[in-house]
Amino acid sequence: MIPRLFIAAPLAEGAATPLGVDQAHYLKHVLRRAEGDDVRLFNGKDGEFSAEITALKKKGGLATVGAQTRPQTKEPDLALYFAPVKRGPLETIIQKAVELGAKSMTPVITERTVATRINRERLQAIATEAAEQCERLSVPPIDAPVKFDALLGDWPSDRRLMFCDEAGDDETKDWGGDQGRAAPALEALKALDKKTDQWAILIGPEGGFSPAEREALREKPFVTPVTLGPRILRADTAAIAALTLWQAALGDWR
Amino acid sequence: MIPRLFIAAPLAEGAATPLGVDQAHYLKHVLRRAEGDDVRLFNGKDGEFSAEITALKKKGGLATVGAQTRPQTKEPDLALYFAPVKRGPLETIIQKAVELGAKSMTPVITERTVATRINRERLQAIATEAAEQCERLSVPPIDAPVKFDALLGDWPSDRRLMFCDEAGDDETKDWGGDQGRAAPALEALKALDKKTDQWAILIGPEGGFSPAEREALREKPFVTPVTLGPRILRADTAAIAALTLWQAALGDWR
Repeated sequence: MIPRLFIAAPLAEGAATPLGVDQAHYLKHVLRRAEGDDVRLFNGKDGEFSAEITALKKKGGLATVGAQTRPQTKEPDLALYFAPVKRGPLETIIQKAVELGAKSMTPVITERTVATRINRERLQAIATEAAEQCERLSVPPIDAPVKFDALLGDWPSDRRLMFCDEAGDDETKDWGGDQGRAAPALEALKALDKKTDQWAILIGPEGGFSPAEREALREKPFVTPVTLGPRILRADTAAIAALTLWQAALGDWR
Repeated sequence: MIPRLFIAAPLAEGAATPLGVDQAHYLKHVLRRAEGDDVRLFNGKDGEFSAEITALKKKGGLATVGAQTRPQTKEPDLALYFAPVKRGPLETIIQKAVELGAKSMTPVITERTVATRINRERLQAIATEAAEQCERLSVPPIDAPVKFDALLGDWPSDRRLMFCDEAGDDETKDWGGDQGRAAPALEALKALDKKTDQWAILIGPEGGFSPAEREALREKPFVTPVTLGPRILRADTAAIAALTLWQAALGDWR
């Protein structure tokens, strides 16, 4: 197994690129690598390159970039918006969203959001590690938290939003309009195939969206409300399931 | 929120049913409930009942069963077989598989399985808690670990096995026969719809299946090899993704 590292700097054959303190430590003390050993490097822009470790010190390291091993490829345009939950499931959401190809991840503060403390630096480190391990060519950003109302108010009209109505679709309530009841996610996605390339997924907090938030969502023309089966899913399970269905139906799993 | 508890005993209106020590502790000290408060009970056979807590002591409790709130319903017949991984992701697999409607969960010891210590009692407790919280009417069993060869040798021919080829489908190798290359999971499932109601999913260890295991799997007529996208998924992510796609394509999410 050749270690894979994300580098912020440009990558080109023949260049020498510095390795950070944490990367040098990881290579030396966790993976037991030494000067002369191979690594693979990617930066989200130039593809993936083979490289040789040329220095490995306490204060950082150096790698000499070799041949390109993979060209940069276009990734599906799928953004994930999620109400922050407590630390364990939150970190699960980030790690899995990277593996499942989300292009960006943005915390959304909703009415019933309890966990509002976000350590973006730590989440970004988790995203980087996940990208390195899952063979992705990019590390998606953890964006600054946004408030629910601002998110809907500033929404770009050409991006479709799959709203996972985890509180369950209330059969007794007539939502009116074209939206009607929420459809099973896979059917909804298949029906909307080819109408747009830009998508987003919205996952609520453990307590679900408030009735006002649900109505606000269902009123928007860019929103597709969907259901994820008859059982109540935790927020992290719902995020993983929604990302999976999107990739399988419209994304790069086809 | 009315607490939901799994009970091993038969349930019928008017009966008094004992609550275990842990259940009494949980109701009293975690959920702050008292005698006279409502609970909901299910046992995997008789549906769900409302009930009233009639005793809550250190050594256990008692509930008086009221009206049935939901009849028992038939669940999809989807078994999950997974190579055990280390504790965190293993517990994620169990919790999420319950939420995603797996009927049983069986550890499989493969060539590259590193983590072979299984605390079935603890995993069963996680499964019970997940069932209580996700509104399921049953608690799927954690079966005793089986060895890979025995699993394939004793396989019931009328149950189809979706084999998640996480090592990636090797384009350079001609697998021969009808199987050819592995298909994307969603396409494979749609193609096999209505041929059988009995399914299983097999997830390998972090190091993947060995070449011999992969060939043994692909030789079996009951096996459908599938891929889960271009990125390398961790074992727990692969399990959740496969269960999700099955439920959406063939299970109770439709």
